[in-house]
Amino acid sequence: MPRIRIDLSYDGGEFCGWQLQKTDPSVQGAIEEALLSLTGEEIRVIGSGRTDSGVHARCQTAHFDTEASIPPQKYTPALNGALPLGVRILRSGEVSPRFHARFSARLRSYRYQIIPGRKATPFDSRYALALKGRPNLQRLNALARMLVGTHDFSTFTAAGDPSESRVRRIESALFFPLGEMILFQISGNAFLWRMVRSIVGTLLEMEAQGRGPEELARILASGERSAAGVTAPAMGLFLYKVEYDEEFRI
Amino acid sequence: MPRIRIDLSYDGGEFCGWQLQKTDPSVQGAIEEALLSLTGEEIRVIGSGRTDSGVHARCQTAHFDTEASIPPQKYTPALNGALPLGVRILRSGEVSPRFHARFSARLRSYRYQIIPGRKATPFDSRYALALKGRPNLQRLNALARMLVGTHDFSTFTAAGDPSESRVRRIESALFFPLGEMILFQISGNAFLWRMVRSIVGTLLEMEAQGRGPEELARILASGERSAAGVTAPAMGLFLYKVEYDEEFRI
Repeated sequence: MPRIRIDLSYDGGEFCGWQLQKTDPSVQGAIEEALLSLTGEEIRVIGSGRTDSGVHARCQTAHFDTEASIPPQKYTPALNGALPLGVRILRSGEVSPRFHARFSARLRSYRYQIIPGRKATPFDSRYALALKGRPNLQRLNALARMLVGTHDFSTFTAAGDPSESRVRRIESALFFPLGEMILFQISGNAFLWRMVRSIVGTLLEMEAQGRGPEELARILASGERSAAGVTAPAMGLFLYKVEYDEEFRI
Repeated sequence: MPRIRIDLSYDGGEFCGWQLQKTDPSVQGAIEEALLSLTGEEIRVIGSGRTDSGVHARCQTAHFDTEASIPPQKYTPALNGALPLGVRILRSGEVSPRFHARFSARLRSYRYQIIPGRKATPFDSRYALALKGRPNLQRLNALARMLVGTHDFSTFTAAGDPSESRVRRIESALFFPLGEMILFQISGNAFLWRMVRSIVGTLLEMEAQGRGPEELARILASGERSAAGVTAPAMGLFLYKVEYDEEFRI
């Protein structure tokens, strides 16, 4: 049975999150429903990972197996015709059955959008965290650099994370300006539940309080969630891209 | 009693429209509620005009009278602290009591955002009309030019418009590209209910069908709503700005 990979984008404000829920509209549920109407098959769609309610995806990746005779590239227009406008398929294609959207993922990147200095318009407020003040980028990046490497990130997860190991490898973590915004981009092999939002909330809080990288190293080593700061709100967070080996390209 | 002018921006998707409603959240209602919490006064806020449910404002203007001792410029941060993030006060100041947000308005400008060629992302879809095709700008502008001048715009209003006269003066009407988008900007002394959306829907339909300016002139002269095309959806429309005499500047 052919395996189809899809790359897609969605506005998290329109959904209760990636994962199928009994009553609320989820992204996974919307795609499975669209596939049912197109193929008549009950198809399970597997994403690279879950995103929480309100978290957006610039580019999420998923896969499914189907007997349907639709040419693999045609899932893009066919699904877009059946899906609500808050989720758009970017591309689709057949991949090796060894491809798995979650387990084959090599690198996941997230972006968090921040608008400092009361510059947020009503149209930004669904997609960014509005700050009154204007944080110092150099101080933020001195903190962010401490996260790069392989660490136990227990400090930065939420109670209820089901992971057996909380060790993750962070490849890069950087704050940079773009227009009126400050963007935070972080890439790693995998992330714990609410890890990016916990990191953003904590780093903004530490910068505002003038606390430095040595203290962050202590907080990280403590493994205590209570040592970290607030969890930044969902609406500023975007799953930016998920990277796979070249053989799985579509 | 001092008269305060406010300029403000809002995301129409968060409100049931400008005008106060019994149960649903309106922009006017949100501001009146915020003023009540700030001043203890029940203050009536008058806008330059109503915007329908889903229609956005890049810059709407309103006024109110108050006995409160808040310095006029301070209404901007004070109201922004009390309002939901979907509406932001851009500026505030005292104006002459002869100023009236609706009756003093000299020129109103609207913009309508269109994304042609299936380029719409999930993040655009709240703020623009997504088109499959790619309309020809020259043909659209040949149609738009026919609207400029003083005309009876009965053809382009909705049943239920309460205006006694349906004659309005259009100063300019132009389609132009901006990034992936096509913008339509139209300026005039005043607009009938749903007039801009009726114009946009009709002009896009006529362009797609290869119908020219002579036919638009006949449709306009007929005064028959049924001669026009569909009403374009609310989410692409922005009240862009409202202009007043220099003496009312804040």
